[in-house]
Amino acid sequence: MNSTYQTRGGGLGVAEGETMDDVRIARAALSRLFEPMDGVGTALVEVLGPVEALRIAVGEVTPPAAPTAVAAGTEGAHSGRGQHGSASQEASASLQTALERWRPRVAHLAPERDLETIARFGGRLVIPEDGEWPEGLSDLGIDAPLCLWVRGEEPLPDTRKSLAIVGSRDATGYGLSVAGELAKGLADRGITVVSGGAYGIDGQAHRGALASAARSLPTVAVMAGGADRYYPSGHEDLLREIARRGLVVSEVPPGSAPTKHRFLKRNRLIAALSSATVVVEARWRSGALSTARRAADLGRNVAAVPGSVYSANSAGCHALLRNGATCVVDEKEVYELLAPAGEGLVEDPQGPPAPHDGLSLVDLAVLEALPVRRGAEVERLAVVAGLSEAEVRAGLGRLALEGLCERTDEGWRRAKRG
Amino acid sequence: MNSTYQTRGGGLGVAEGETMDDVRIARAALSRLFEPMDGVGTALVEVLGPVEALRIAVGEVTPPAAPTAVAAGTEGAHSGRGQHGSASQEASASLQTALERWRPRVAHLAPERDLETIARFGGRLVIPEDGEWPEGLSDLGIDAPLCLWVRGEEPLPDTRKSLAIVGSRDATGYGLSVAGELAKGLADRGITVVSGGAYGIDGQAHRGALASAARSLPTVAVMAGGADRYYPSGHEDLLREIARRGLVVSEVPPGSAPTKHRFLKRNRLIAALSSATVVVEARWRSGALSTARRAADLGRNVAAVPGSVYSANSAGCHALLRNGATCVVDEKEVYELLAPAGEGLVEDPQGPPAPHDGLSLVDLAVLEALPVRRGAEVERLAVVAGLSEAEVRAGLGRLALEGLCERTDEGWRRAKRG
Repeated sequence: MNSTYQTRGGGLGVAEGETMDDVRIARAALSRLFEPMDGVGTALVEVLGPVEALRIAVGEVTPPAAPTAVAAGTEGAHSGRGQHGSASQEASASLQTALERWRPRVAHLAPERDLETIARFGGRLVIPEDGEWPEGLSDLGIDAPLCLWVRGEEPLPDTRKSLAIVGSRDATGYGLSVAGELAKGLADRGITVVSGGAYGIDGQAHRGALASAARSLPTVAVMAGGADRYYPSGHEDLLREIARRGLVVSEVPPGSAPTKHRFLKRNRLIAALSSATVVVEARWRSGALSTARRAADLGRNVAAVPGSVYSANSAGCHALLRNGATCVVDEKEVYELLAPAGEGLVEDPQGPPAPHDGLSLVDLAVLEALPVRRGAEVERLAVVAGLSEAEVRAGLGRLALEGLCERTDEGWRRAKRG
Repeated sequence: MNSTYQTRGGGLGVAEGETMDDVRIARAALSRLFEPMDGVGTALVEVLGPVEALRIAVGEVTPPAAPTAVAAGTEGAHSGRGQHGSASQEASASLQTALERWRPRVAHLAPERDLETIARFGGRLVIPEDGEWPEGLSDLGIDAPLCLWVRGEEPLPDTRKSLAIVGSRDATGYGLSVAGELAKGLADRGITVVSGGAYGIDGQAHRGALASAARSLPTVAVMAGGADRYYPSGHEDLLREIARRGLVVSEVPPGSAPTKHRFLKRNRLIAALSSATVVVEARWRSGALSTARRAADLGRNVAAVPGSVYSANSAGCHALLRNGATCVVDEKEVYELLAPAGEGLVEDPQGPPAPHDGLSLVDLAVLEALPVRRGAEVERLAVVAGLSEAEVRAGLGRLALEGLCERTDEGWRRAKRG
């Protein structure tokens, strides 16, 4: 059995004698049993597959004879090799601790009921074995979620066309305005805006995306608690609308509370579901910065919106900019973070050319030397400009062609603008 | 004679039979004869030294038999090798053109009078042969100025302790405020603030530096016209004060007009005299950006102050940030651009630690699971937190030690804050 799962790559797929339903129910149960990023738990699933992992986790079967691989994987991923004891002993010890940790929740498991609940909310459980499982989540490796509880009808978006817009809850009017505009502009271009559903920047990003009339998936809210919960409560209407036209997703089952600990882990999902993360406003101590760090760890582009140096709400953005984040000021620049090289490149808004643009330095010197009112002779212009008379004459000819100078009875002067 | 100058390194020093006065007078005259960055002129000085170069430039002696080195140097530096004709022919041709260019000004040369003028303004002419010639100007190579006309008594500042603060003339209140604060803060730290004396950011940078009570040289204004001219006229009082307590400098002699062409070339001096350039506010099309480019070309640090994405006056700064300039928000961060590695490093303003800082994820999960009012038993906390009962008990012990939880008749709850 072990080898079956291993050859199918990291616990994915449906083993012999199992149905997709078995796997879905197992993952549903595991997502309630394990807290997000439970190291031993995810290693168990990785090695044995979800169905067998669940049977062990609930104590239905005793762990396989050689659980070394499970906990060795865990140790490698989370705390490095232990200093004493064999790998096998360590593995038994950490699995034993984990089983104790899971035990209090076993009696509360009811995966079928959870699946009914999400269905009642117009949703479903998406698992890595499903075709719509987003590619970007694989970059999380051992920290990938076991499944995603999804409210909404559309399939999960293509990571390459998704972009996270995040920021502080206590946003300023400036930050809210920028977040809304960026999100709408990106949704207009067919990009899905991923955020955390919170007050402030997150909420405004979702609202901006929903304001777009584009037909692509406008926005995804990744929740720290259950996808059925309206948290924060003031966003009930917004979250309903996101579930109706976009998606509300969570790795924890319906009814789960949004604890601080789950918020911190949730941020990795926002980063992984998006091909770039833009921080619009963040204080020094902001969850949005943790999302940005996770994005950078995943090799994703990280960008920050600049703001006033007097705004504490931009201090986190400025710290990101100092540390290599890309400075973005509008949705074109944000879009450039996603576009394949060469596509969507931003042109410098140069404005209309000034009349002296493109002049050689000689011609510029002649132009500068020309009086505005009374004309001056070539000899005088040569002295003022520091050029030979021949150069002045040639320059005057070119400037006259451009309509920049004119000859008067008293000599040359600048042409009056029409 | 050639070899004498060449061995003394690029036209520097006083040749046999010459005095420092001869060299000073020659450079004074050449600075009126040549426009800034006159390629042939500077090459002539480089090869033959200023005294001999002047004699050729005014037509007092014919060019030496083999002028190849002069114009070959020029060609190399300014336009690459010509496609046709020998180097010697080209050299003769470009020197001939240059002589014609210089001729109209020869009759107006009066270097002794210019030196008297600058002295009357409480100033002097500083030449590369002087000990106080700033090291940073050498980085300009062939584009280094022939001399600096200086108003003020203090010696020119150490490039390593000078910093340029530049920006738009049409600054906003935001930009003016930041420029003034940065400049004062830097002057307080003994840094000399270099800028261009213009309205807007430049003027405010000078004012901010002058507002410091530090005893070091507060500020240097680098002018596009003569150091005796009050340009712009509205800055007459400011420039007088800079000349009194700081320095007003120019590479063109007293009385010279500040032409656009000289403004563009002046920017290289601001960049070269400073070990870093900070742009506070700049539009897309701003002279401040040309100073920043020159600074980058010289290998100097370039920094930009962020601002609102809605402010056109910050658009140039944001473009710099996108292109690798360092984001700076206060004078500590600017100072860091100058400080040797490890010195003056900025500490993160973390603010007071939150009560849950430094808790392990296990303890955080326990803390989050604790009810605020009515207590809960360990079994219940284990279910909520997703931990084993043993982990919950250990966590409660640690939290109680930190004063974060308390035992009631009904079980454990969060401690009330004192």
